[in-house]
Amino acid sequence: MTQARVTIVEVGPRDGLQNEAATLPVETKVELIERLGEAGLRIIEAGAFVSPKWIPQMADSGEVLKRLCRRPDVRYPVLVPNERGYADARAAGADEVAVFAAASDTFSRRNVNCSIDESLERFRPVCAQAKTDGVRVRGYISCVLGCPYEGAVPVAAVVRVAESLAAMGCGDVSLGDTIGVGTPGAARALLKAVAASVPMDRLGVHFHDTYGQALANILACLEEGVATIDASVSGLGGCPYAKGASGNVGTEDVAYMLRGLGIETGIDLDRLVDTGIFIARALGRAPASKTAQALAAKR
Amino acid sequence: MTQARVTIVEVGPRDGLQNEAATLPVETKVELIERLGEAGLRIIEAGAFVSPKWIPQMADSGEVLKRLCRRPDVRYPVLVPNERGYADARAAGADEVAVFAAASDTFSRRNVNCSIDESLERFRPVCAQAKTDGVRVRGYISCVLGCPYEGAVPVAAVVRVAESLAAMGCGDVSLGDTIGVGTPGAARALLKAVAASVPMDRLGVHFHDTYGQALANILACLEEGVATIDASVSGLGGCPYAKGASGNVGTEDVAYMLRGLGIETGIDLDRLVDTGIFIARALGRAPASKTAQALAAKR
Repeated sequence: MTQARVTIVEVGPRDGLQNEAATLPVETKVELIERLGEAGLRIIEAGAFVSPKWIPQMADSGEVLKRLCRRPDVRYPVLVPNERGYADARAAGADEVAVFAAASDTFSRRNVNCSIDESLERFRPVCAQAKTDGVRVRGYISCVLGCPYEGAVPVAAVVRVAESLAAMGCGDVSLGDTIGVGTPGAARALLKAVAASVPMDRLGVHFHDTYGQALANILACLEEGVATIDASVSGLGGCPYAKGASGNVGTEDVAYMLRGLGIETGIDLDRLVDTGIFIARALGRAPASKTAQALAAKR
Repeated sequence: MTQARVTIVEVGPRDGLQNEAATLPVETKVELIERLGEAGLRIIEAGAFVSPKWIPQMADSGEVLKRLCRRPDVRYPVLVPNERGYADARAAGADEVAVFAAASDTFSRRNVNCSIDESLERFRPVCAQAKTDGVRVRGYISCVLGCPYEGAVPVAAVVRVAESLAAMGCGDVSLGDTIGVGTPGAARALLKAVAASVPMDRLGVHFHDTYGQALANILACLEEGVATIDASVSGLGGCPYAKGASGNVGTEDVAYMLRGLGIETGIDLDRLVDTGIFIARALGRAPASKTAQALAAKR
């Protein structure tokens, strides 16, 4: 590995909380985001401007953005599904957004009710407007290593979506193993294939720990050269005690590994663990991150 | 990675159960070991001949060995701390044993009440007798990447103990990150250093998932060439709900990763998951392995 530094994109307040059963009060979300900033995270996904009918957990994202005491050194992207979401996000003060496509057509239809290509067409005017506004756009691709409906997903399908998102103006593209089925060889091969079209410094990786593979997959991708890793404090996004828990990889575990590898992240691990304990308590459970559990037990 | 095949040493019935609070009946242990054999494990640590005062969980290892229906294609090593343990194990029908040293002097004194060198001297006559008897001996080294009392452990200390164990007749040496603090760079560097003295095909790695690093560490060691991996079905050896859980890496998670990497293990993952669910139920909890949780939820 040659990276001296890796950027962790903290997705807990959005991708994490969106997939928790409980809906937390605005104050708790604001405190979570602020504490993450104090712990050294520099990109924190702060919410989503999607239909509250579909994702009630994110209905108050506008309120969260308004109350948030923003640090000048932190970026707070929010998810937007289309032009309307973009307009709402901007009205609420967002200055960075993310769009969300799938590498599997069936998943796309079930998740956002349109084909991959139709979803990409929705993002084109969003990206154009964002460019005019000087707003950064991140592109997420889900199901990059497998789809719950289609099973295996061809690498070429991921490459095609990544190319489209990059071409329409996404500054970086996050490759998401949404159902956590990937293993390190497949993760590495996928990243390598996508990096042949979209430069590595515009790619991120996003693993779920459903099969316990997330950290090994991240290691393989680090070896391949990636320098942006999505993670979710306390493993938000899947309760560890639920059947088939499928949470995001815990930011604490990623930060612990990177520290051990001598790679700088800017994260204060103790503060991060505190933040994970805080949000886990708010959800009424223990942190899903093993590093958080281990460090908390030592106190 | 160039390994076409990796041997998983299943340590659940010994290292796992020894570190669980509950003591299970003999029948349950026998069923566990037999089911592991049916699931394709070919080396299954079956018990320990240690003082029942210190480790009551293993007091019935002789009974387990006697009742066990042994498969001709499976090896059933047992742990022995000294000549007396060796004699007891042999009397109970063991035809393969393991000895246990530490890379940290303080840990050795606290754990077995003598220095590293004194413990090695205890193993010398065990190894000599085993050679006479045609009995294989495996050597464990604990604390290879950190000690709960001393903190960092010098690589040279691990190399020295590994060399001693190999020289006195241990056919293979297992490098154990007992407290799970290691990260992939350190794991790889350690393995490489030890492999300069003891051939790689006589080395195994043994990781605990205390900080969630086990699978990433295993990946790094696979890349370095190791072909023997210790694992514990259902992550036996640390309750996932306990504070500071420090269980062994789950055999299911390792098997899932190796299958994804195209590395043969001979394991039937579904049967292994069933076995993990069986033993977790006997302990009154869910399997600690995420692969087991995920596959069980899909059924």
